[in-house]
This record gives sequence, C-alpha cells and structure tokens, in this order.
Amino acid sequence: MESLVIAGRSFSSRLIVGTGKYKDGPETKAAVEASGAEMVTVAVRRVNLDRTKESLLDYLDPAKMFLLPNTAGCYSAEEAIRAARLGREVGLSDWVKIEVIGDMATLFPDIAATVEATKVLVKEGFTVLPYTSNDIVFAKRLIDVGAAAVMPLGAPIGTGLGLTDTYGLRMLRELVTEVPLIVDAGLGTASDAALAMEMGFDGVLLNTAIAGANDPVLMAEAMRDAVLAGYKAKVAGRMPRKLYATASSPLDGISR
Amino acid sequence: MESLVIAGRSFSSRLIVGTGKYKDGPETKAAVEASGAEMVTVAVRRVNLDRTKESLLDYLDPAKMFLLPNTAGCYSAEEAIRAARLGREVGLSDWVKIEVIGDMATLFPDIAATVEATKVLVKEGFTVLPYTSNDIVFAKRLIDVGAAAVMPLGAPIGTGLGLTDTYGLRMLRELVTEVPLIVDAGLGTASDAALAMEMGFDGVLLNTAIAGANDPVLMAEAMRDAVLAGYKAKVAGRMPRKLYATASSPLDGISR
Amino acid sequence: MESLVIAGRSFSSRLIVGTGKYKDGPETKAAVEASGAEMVTVAVRRVNLDRTKESLLDYLDPAKMFLLPNTAGCYSAEEAIRAARLGREVGLSDWVKIEVIGDMATLFPDIAATVEATKVLVKEGFTVLPYTSNDIVFAKRLIDVGAAAVMPLGAPIGTGLGLTDTYGLRMLRELVTEVPLIVDAGLGTASDAALAMEMGFDGVLLNTAIAGANDPVLMAEAMRDAVLAGYKAKVAGRMPRKLYATASSPLDGISR
Amino acid sequence: MESLVIAGRSFSSRLIVGTGKYKDGPETKAAVEASGAEMVTVAVRRVNLDRTKESLLDYLDPAKMFLLPNTAGCYSAEEAIRAARLGREVGLSDWVKIEVIGDMATLFPDIAATVEATKVLVKEGFTVLPYTSNDIVFAKRLIDVGAAAVMPLGAPIGTGLGLTDTYGLRMLRELVTEVPLIVDAGLGTASDAALAMEMGFDGVLLNTAIAGANDPVLMAEAMRDAVLAGYKAKVAGRMPRKLYATASSPLDGISR
Repeated sequence: MESLVIAGRSFSSRLIVGTGKYKDGPETKAAVEASGAEMVTVAVRRVNLDRTKESLLDYLDPAKMFLLPNTAGCYSAEEAIRAARLGREVGLSDWVKIEVIGDMATLFPDIAATVEATKVLVKEGFTVLPYTSNDIVFAKRLIDVGAAAVMPLGAPIGTGLGLTDTYGLRMLRELVTEVPLIVDAGLGTASDAALAMEMGFDGVLLNTAIAGANDPVLMAEAMRDAVLAGYKAKVAGRMPRKLYATASSPLDGISR
Repeated sequence: MESLVIAGRSFSSRLIVGTGKYKDGPETKAAVEASGAEMVTVAVRRVNLDRTKESLLDYLDPAKMFLLPNTAGCYSAEEAIRAARLGREVGLSDWVKIEVIGDMATLFPDIAATVEATKVLVKEGFTVLPYTSNDIVFAKRLIDVGAAAVMPLGAPIGTGLGLTDTYGLRMLRELVTEVPLIVDAGLGTASDAALAMEMGFDGVLLNTAIAGANDPVLMAEAMRDAVLAGYKAKVAGRMPRKLYATASSPLDGISR
Repeated sequence: MESLVIAGRSFSSRLIVGTGKYKDGPETKAAVEASGAEMVTVAVRRVNLDRTKESLLDYLDPAKMFLLPNTAGCYSAEEAIRAARLGREVGLSDWVKIEVIGDMATLFPDIAATVEATKVLVKEGFTVLPYTSNDIVFAKRLIDVGAAAVMPLGAPIGTGLGLTDTYGLRMLRELVTEVPLIVDAGLGTASDAALAMEMGFDGVLLNTAIAGANDPVLMAEAMRDAVLAGYKAKVAGRMPRKLYATASSPLDGISR
Repeated sequence: MESLVIAGRSFSSRLIVGTGKYKDGPETKAAVEASGAEMVTVAVRRVNLDRTKESLLDYLDPAKMFLLPNTAGCYSAEEAIRAARLGREVGLSDWVKIEVIGDMATLFPDIAATVEATKVLVKEGFTVLPYTSNDIVFAKRLIDVGAAAVMPLGAPIGTGLGLTDTYGLRMLRELVTEVPLIVDAGLGTASDAALAMEMGFDGVLLNTAIAGANDPVLMAEAMRDAVLAGYKAKVAGRMPRKLYATASSPLDGISR
C-alpha cells in the first residue's frame, strides 16, 4: 500500500484521529493506539500546555505518533493564527490543522477566514492543513495560498451523518488533485470511512465517531479496518455496475 | 468477536465467498485465501466432479475450508433438488445453498420454488441455506420449512450495485431473528459489505465483487477487512446521528 | 395528454384513490373530488353493501367515478376470491383490485396467493388489477395469468415512505411493458407521486397519503397536480444530467 | 395559497424562470407563459439593451411579468456590480439577482464576492437576490448585508441533478427564516421542484430544466404544476412516516 504523503512527509496510515471527548487519558491512549493512526490531532486550546501538570500529551507517545495541533474553538482567522503560533512556541509542531468555526449552531467552518489564516501561517513557515467545506472555489484558494492538504467535511462536526453530500465530494475529488484531499468531520461509522476511501480521498480524519461510540476502542479498530478496506478496494479496482445481469442500459440516476 | 453459527456449526469469518468467474484455479485459491473466508461456495453444476481430471476442488483445501455446494444455474425447484442430491452423493456436503433463478434477464430468484426446494431438502436431512429476495412473507416461509439461514439479495446477482433496497433489508433484519440472515449477491465494493454488517446482518456472501475486480486478491483482502470493520462497528455501538451539532430536531427523512 | 387505458377502458386521470381512513363520508367525497381521480377503489369488506343504510357508496357518484372494488383485509387467495365475487354479485363491478396480505406486521403482499387469486378470477371473467411487490418473477406470472395491470408497491401500505426501492421499480419498469404498471401503496407526499410518473409508471394509486394528511382535501389537490406534473415531465423529455456544467464524466453512482 | 412576498412585493407564483438557452424568442415567450411564473429573470449581459433592434424583451410583457435582471456571466463582485447598475440605468429594474461565478468548470458561485456585491448594491438602493451555495455562514452574511432573499443552489448550474445535498438544504431551511429562501439552479425535472417546495423552500428558480427539455413548453407546465403540488403538500401537512404499518421504531437513517 502506498503511504499518505503530506508536505513531503510519509504516513503509513491514512486514518488521522482526534483526541477530544474521551472519558480520560487512558481511554484516549487505548483508542488512538487501536486506530493505528500515525497522525493524531490535539486542540491547542484544550491541551494543558503546562507540562508540570497532567496533560493529554502524557498519553500520546511522540516517538510513535505525529502530533498535529488544531485550532478547534477558534471563531476568527486571528484566533486561529494565534493558536497556531502558540502551538509552535510551546514546541508542539509547526504543522497545524486550521479550523475556524463560522456558525455556532452547526459548527460549520468560515471558509473565507480559513483561507485568510492559511495564507498568513504558510508565510510564517507553517505546514497548514485547513478544515473546510466542499466549496470548490475556496478549495482552490486554499491551494493557491499554500495549504498542504485540503480537508472538506463529510458532514458538520459531531453529527455522525457520514458523507451527506457525496455529489459535492465527488466533484471536489475530480477537480482537486494538487494536494491530498482528506475527509474531515461528520463520519459516524465504519462504512462511511470505507466509502470515503473508495471515492478516492487520500485519507480520513475523525474523532467523535470513535470517542462517541459505546466502545471507543473497538470502534477505533473498526475504523482502522474500514480505512484499509476502502483504500484497498479503490486500488483493487471495483467491478463495473450494471442495472441487472444482462442489462445494457446506462445507470444514470441509480442511487448507489 | 462472536463466531457466526449456522445449524450449530461455528465459522470464524462472517464472509462467505463464491468461486465463479475467476481466471483460473490459482487465482481462485489466492483470492479465497486472501478473503479469510472459512465457508466457500461451489456450483455443483460447474465443478468437475470427476476427480481424475483437474477440478476447482484441487484448489480448495477441505481441511481449511468448509465447502458449501450451491445450485447456481437451476431454474426450477426440481433442478435445484437434483443438484443438491448430486452434491451429497459425490461426497461434497449435505449442506447446500439453494439458488433457483426465476428470470433469465435479471437472475432474480424464484422465491416460491426456493421455498419448495428448501422444504423437500430439509426433509431429506440437508442443511439448507436459501438465496432469496427481501420478501418478508417468503423469508418467514423459508424459516417455517426449516431453512438454516435466510440469504436475501443486496441487489440482483452480478450487478455490483450494493444494497439497493436498504429499507427492505432493514425491515427484514428487524423481523427475522430466528436464523442467521446473510446478504447474498449484488455487492460491488468494500463499503457495501461494511454497511451490511453495520445494519446487523450476520454475514455476507459474495463472488463477482471479488472475481470481477481488476485485482481480485487485493479486493478479497478489502472485503475481509470491510466485513470485520462493519461487524466491529456494529458491536461497538455507533455514535448517535444529529442534524447538526446543537440540533434537537428528529432525523426523519434524512438520507444516511 | 394520453389517457390511461386498462383492459380497453380509458381513464382521463392517472391517479387512482382509495376511500379508507377518512373521518366521514363528506370528507371522503370532498377529497376524492379534489383529487380529480376517475377511478376510486373501495374495500368490499368495509363497505356497507346493505343500501338501505348509510354507506360510503352514497358519497361516490357512479356517474362520475369508476368504482374499483378491492379485497383489502384478505389474508388468502380464497378470501380474496370470495370478496371479488361478492363485489360482483351486489352489482359493484366485475373489475377488482386483488390485495392478499401475507404478513400482518408489515401488510406486505403474499405474491404467490395473489397470482393464484388473479388466475381464478380472470377465468371467471373478472378484470383483475393485482397489488404486488416489485418482484419481477411474479410480475411476469401475473401477466401470464391475465392481470389487466400490475401494481407494485412503492413502500408497504401505510408507511408513507415513498419509493423505497427506486432501483427495483426502475428494473420492473424496463422489463414489464405488456400491461399498465401502477405504483400502489407507500407514497407519502406529492413529490413521491411525481417521481413515480417520471420513472415511467402509467399511474399511481394512493390512499393514506391523502386521508392521513392534516388537510386531506388540499393534499388531494397536491396529488392531482403532482401526477400531472410528473407525467408531463416524462412526456416533455427531461434535460440530460451532468456531473457539472462542463463535465464529460459518466454519472454512475450519483445519487439522483 | 399564500403569495410569495419578497421585499414587500407579492408574487402569485412561487416559480421564477430564466430566459437563457431557448431556441428563439417565440419559444421563450411560450415557455415562460406556460410556466405561470410572474417573475422572469434576464441576463443583463445577454439581453440586447438597444431597443431599436430585436430583443428578448420584445417577447416578455412587463405588464404581466416582473423582470428580474441577473448578472450571469460575471466572475467578480465588480463585474456583477457594474451589470446591476447597467440594468438599472437602462430602465430594467432596481432589483437584481446577483450571480458571481467562482469556478469556470463547475459554475460554482464565489460566495465571498457575492456577499461583497450584495453589500454594495443594497447600499445603492437595490433589492438584491443573491445566488449562493448552501453554506450557512455566508447565507447569514447575505442577510446581514441586506439581501432580500437567499437563493442556494440545488446543484450547480446546468447539471439537472436536482437537490444533490438535501441534508445541507434542510439545515439551511431550519436556520434561515429572516428572508425568503429560494432554490436556484440545478433542478432537472418536476419532482425536484415539488421536493424543494415540500422541504419548505419559499420558491424555486430554474431555467435549463425547462429550456433544455425536449418539449420546453410542456416542461414549463410540468414545473408550474410541480411547484403548486409541492407547496400544497407542504401546507396540507403530510402523513407521518413509519418503518412499516405496525412499526414503532424510529426512522433514523432511512433513506427517504
């Protein structure tokens, strides 16, 4: 299997996981390890950066995992930029996942502020992975200002609805090929992750789907398997679809 | 993970695979092994039962795999019954997957003939796994006449469309609990298999989705992973769905 | 607009409506009239055939409407046959909509008993319109035994889910062309009816979608308009679908 | 039926139609009249404003129709602003539908430029109806800067795919209630329009779905009927959905 390469760095797993919403540190650690993820994202604003006290970071081994600070909880480009800088200053990373929320009710991203923050941070030497919608115009702007990947939502954060707009995501996948395209947010279960990989996305980032399951560690394993399954299926080249065994008619408008 | 138990026999894998449409014996063997399936189905009518000549059976190790004869290519209860008896006579098995095709264009099953054949064969001591549609009335009749499992189609044979009628399958899953319920036919890719398991089906049977892929062995691995992923996700208990992060409205009518 | 022709008789409207579940006779009358339906179906078992007392029939003007007796509430071919004969004896009609329920929980039809009842009644001179599933094998059997139309369910009776299996219905529509094909049961709202007509069905039969609306008379109008809209759209020939304005890629797997 | 009210002006029809892509003036006129639309949109850049020559405007009677200039073909806020001003100067209208394309391949809107143009034009006294995506953040910004309505796309212009993201549209409908919400672009056939109205949208704007049909005039009638059907169905209050007749289980995740 080919590695996922972002900004010249290779990752053996195409699954990226978050660290929010777990019961405690040990559960976080167990789930993250079960997921097989090599890249793990942590909210700069939520992690205890004072390392003299207990911190989420105690449970994540930087020797095995690549920590990706994120700007969860930021509502403007300025806040996100500050969070990114803080993450770098305390030695977390010069990579950052930019997340700028534009609507409190839905946690939908503010894609214009996301472009703005990405632009500033790229100039400051950051490797920026922005969380965005499936808006093709802003996806291209993110690439223009130097984003190392584009991370459209499958569904809004915390909904667990999977890929609500497979059409929009498919269009995005056809038209964005310059950088890795990673589905971020909204997934709810294993088949969602498999489907994202089959559609040709380069990776999947999720958090609540694991942390919010009844058994987070088992769900983490399920997600690990699902990402592999979907990726292998994509590489293996699926059988053609037919309306029925002997059909010659085209499939326009057929649901799956 | 709990084993799949059919008629008192345990199977470690919930994936059952067919052996049709492969290029040759070695490819069949490699794909079947990669799938991790413990139960493998072979068409009585297509296997060379004369063991002095090369046969598909040379490539399947009965020590490692449980062979399930099937009646593919039969168009009436009588033909299916004869094929089942032949399979037993030549020592293949007293288990049989009953498949009676009712329509040549679509390969849709004749569910009434399937009940008839099941009834006769159960009386003769066979363990019968019938391939059927998602018709709840006939699913119950199959159980009444002694079927050891019920195997509704995801989509007609060879279409690769996945689960075309998730509604009907969900209804069936809610109402049929006496015997294992296994999705048989129509799957096209890994996420289809994961979804079937997440919906609570006890197993998945597929053939063309693997044999018809560009790389059958890799697709077999993908299917193995996908069945595991879907099963674990089901057992792990997925997060609840929400319309949006702070939504309290119900989700009736939302697509996924 | 072309008329709907069944067994040589022309109907100006392609909407057929039921008469169950209304509050009272006047509401039934108002809704039926608002629907513009020319054919109205009444349950032989539920109508008061003693014309000295108040009856549903007092509210339906046989000069304007064609009454189609149905066998709702029958659970076997025999019961359905008896109900059909009774309907003819009391002078209702020698047409009958055959409905044989096979499962009490879901009201799913017993399609084998439906074929049996249709066969017997056609021999007795009835014009038979059977309610069935989207099973292609039994649809063809219904035609073979002389059904004047085939009426597959959109979804089980009373669910209001619309066309739950658009794939199966599309396959049926491609393969059944000998007699009119009418979607019967399961529709919930106007767009369901429009979609059925756009898919090429010859008509739509519904009851609860109107009777169960908050305002049945207004919903009857909506259904009238929707059937016309869908039929005209079908005849008008819709624009081709594209993935995006300048796309040349095929649309396999796209949702609508 | 309640009128559609935008910026204090009432419209008897909830269908708004475009005038592009027709064969000639007479066909445009016939289709527009058949649609029953009271508001008709014309591209400032494509209409011949020199009234000494033949013009599209010769075929649209301003006594019967309300002309809404649009900025089709504009790729920046500045171009759109200029087109709007030009439309007012030549006496077309001080209303304008703002359309700023952000991506040539997909004709997806540039929603940030759309907000910018709306802001400027509202200050100049225009009544602005912006075409946008279903991005909730920018929908709210459009309202904040004074848009008289918000017009999200059903699918990108000219695709005919209908409502590709019913989830996003439903979320938008729940959260945007300050101004009329009108589905603009992407519809392909009558049931798409009916569905949009049933989802609670205040109106539908379309062009290619009519002009690109084999018989545009008949499709215009179909669209008129479909909008009425969907609107009436919404007002009538549809029956509740059930998994099956006697089911008590919730419907989360069921497709329609």
